[in-house]
Amino acid sequence: MALTNRQIHLVSRPTTAEATLDNFALVEAHLPEPHELSAGQVLVKHHFLSLDPFLRGRMNDSRSYAKPQPLHTTMLGATVGEVLASKAEGFAAGDHVSGWGGWQEYQLVDTTAFEPLDPSQTAPLVRIDTRRVPMSAYLGAVGLPGVSAWYGINRIIVPKVGETIVVSSAGGSVGSTAGQLAKLRGCRVIGVAGGEAKCRYVVEEFGFDACIDYKAHPDLKSLVKALAAAAPDGIDGCFENVGGMVLDAVLTLMNGYGRIALCGLSAGYSGDPIPITRAGRILLNRLKIEGMMIGDHTDIWVQALAELGAYVAAGQLHYRESISQGLDAAPEAFLGLLRGQNTGKQLIRLV
Amino acid sequence: MALTNRQIHLVSRPTTAEATLDNFALVEAHLPEPHELSAGQVLVKHHFLSLDPFLRGRMNDSRSYAKPQPLHTTMLGATVGEVLASKAEGFAAGDHVSGWGGWQEYQLVDTTAFEPLDPSQTAPLVRIDTRRVPMSAYLGAVGLPGVSAWYGINRIIVPKVGETIVVSSAGGSVGSTAGQLAKLRGCRVIGVAGGEAKCRYVVEEFGFDACIDYKAHPDLKSLVKALAAAAPDGIDGCFENVGGMVLDAVLTLMNGYGRIALCGLSAGYSGDPIPITRAGRILLNRLKIEGMMIGDHTDIWVQALAELGAYVAAGQLHYRESISQGLDAAPEAFLGLLRGQNTGKQLIRLV
Repeated sequence: MALTNRQIHLVSRPTTAEATLDNFALVEAHLPEPHELSAGQVLVKHHFLSLDPFLRGRMNDSRSYAKPQPLHTTMLGATVGEVLASKAEGFAAGDHVSGWGGWQEYQLVDTTAFEPLDPSQTAPLVRIDTRRVPMSAYLGAVGLPGVSAWYGINRIIVPKVGETIVVSSAGGSVGSTAGQLAKLRGCRVIGVAGGEAKCRYVVEEFGFDACIDYKAHPDLKSLVKALAAAAPDGIDGCFENVGGMVLDAVLTLMNGYGRIALCGLSAGYSGDPIPITRAGRILLNRLKIEGMMIGDHTDIWVQALAELGAYVAAGQLHYRESISQGLDAAPEAFLGLLRGQNTGKQLIRLV
Repeated sequence: MALTNRQIHLVSRPTTAEATLDNFALVEAHLPEPHELSAGQVLVKHHFLSLDPFLRGRMNDSRSYAKPQPLHTTMLGATVGEVLASKAEGFAAGDHVSGWGGWQEYQLVDTTAFEPLDPSQTAPLVRIDTRRVPMSAYLGAVGLPGVSAWYGINRIIVPKVGETIVVSSAGGSVGSTAGQLAKLRGCRVIGVAGGEAKCRYVVEEFGFDACIDYKAHPDLKSLVKALAAAAPDGIDGCFENVGGMVLDAVLTLMNGYGRIALCGLSAGYSGDPIPITRAGRILLNRLKIEGMMIGDHTDIWVQALAELGAYVAAGQLHYRESISQGLDAAPEAFLGLLRGQNTGKQLIRLV
């Protein structure tokens, strides 16, 4: 069993707002034979790789955000897979595991020299139970996106039964989970998504009460009118992934003491300014806006993952995946994700 | 002792952003003789009247804010004074009291038919102790402005020793108290105020570490540079009374997990748009912005007033007053307050 690993490296930084295919390169790398493993090492074969928009920020050489991804290293990414061989306590061949394996087909993990790549990472590898929850769900509804949704809903918005909650990017893995969690708490949930088709499945597959197609509303007034029609009692909470005009529309309709979990600002990803023009509403209606990054909140992961896993196993939490086949497809799929072309969680299948 | 009361009524609504003198009229009103009081009534002679910017909002016939002040009624306002006669339990002639007596020289209070004018009002009249705290302070540092400062500092910003806190409108009664409370908690405190003279007394009288004159900085870049020089370790908390460019400058320099108590947006009082252009910082630095109106937080009044009174009595909390003499001066002084012409708490002395 002579294995060759394949990896996608970052080889140059984007010079414009849009990243391009030539920022990436496919590289072959040596892997040890199973009998060559040292004590503490685990060899994992990846089944799925997660592609996440936040990586775009790390491709820049910018100090304002997270640490940049160094050039000529394997792109960062969450992975799930199967242990091929183990010389580490707690892992055996055949175990299913999740980790931060990166954009590669195999991963050699040294469990004794663990250095977290992400603050949410409490261990290099975590065994996962795939009897009632599919393996890929650990990269979506029962992974980082799901925990982001859980934190925003349960720790910032804290919705009460009967309240109206708006979720933007409602078709994405974070937004769809956030909306379903709010529905499970007895709320009226309004999605905002781009395009008629996305809006339809947000309502039909994820059970939102309504979904507004922001692409059909070129100005704030029109968007406010559509949202107002869907939220006749006003808006009490908002899980915000977009910013710009969507956030202004929500602010316009927000009830007193409304809470906004600011999880993303995709309207500004390409460099466009995204001012909050309705700032006066924050004061007048005593609103709370809180920016969040899920890596900060390691304390809630165990509870959040347990709840999310139970909901998925019980069929109460639905998710959708966009799956591209093969490591070679990762750069193209990642660029498509940044353009909003995916529906649901964007994954690469590696087996 | 035949008393005639004099009152200032709102007689018309402003037709432009600036209110004018002819929106007000002086009206004489009958007062009962002390022996004519009914059971439960208290007759109070006002010593000081507080003028507050929030009244400007209530002069409009607008549904978006608090209930408008009805036309041809006495302008709303906090007052302190002395009981002339009482047929109510708990009050005797000579007692010093605070209440919401409005823009008038006397007030006949029916303690049995109490209807709060403001949510913060838990009683129509409250006896105050003027042995160690001057009577007028109950309208400022130990009144509504002080409690606003206390809430923003202790319930939203919650500063830690050594953190850097920015306070805008630092020369006003709310801002000066907020900054001193932050100093008492061991913070570096930077004020923002309009004009060199105000900035000087913010530092010299209120003990701020520095104060930036926003009028000397016509653009965001220049204001950011001045703030950065005064806050070399970045900004951890902000008590914001202004909004617009000041808030953007603070957002630009804010450290991770910074907290902004949004207590006022005076930059927008005249109708100018006050967008938050640095919205991306809220997400990237996981900031929290919370709008507050002190009338909502009746639960903290007793604790806040006790602490503020103790600080004033101990000489640890300083304040400044702009006092105009006589009820007739109230409209002019109020318009000056809206133009930022006061230094410290704007009061009318009625005795």
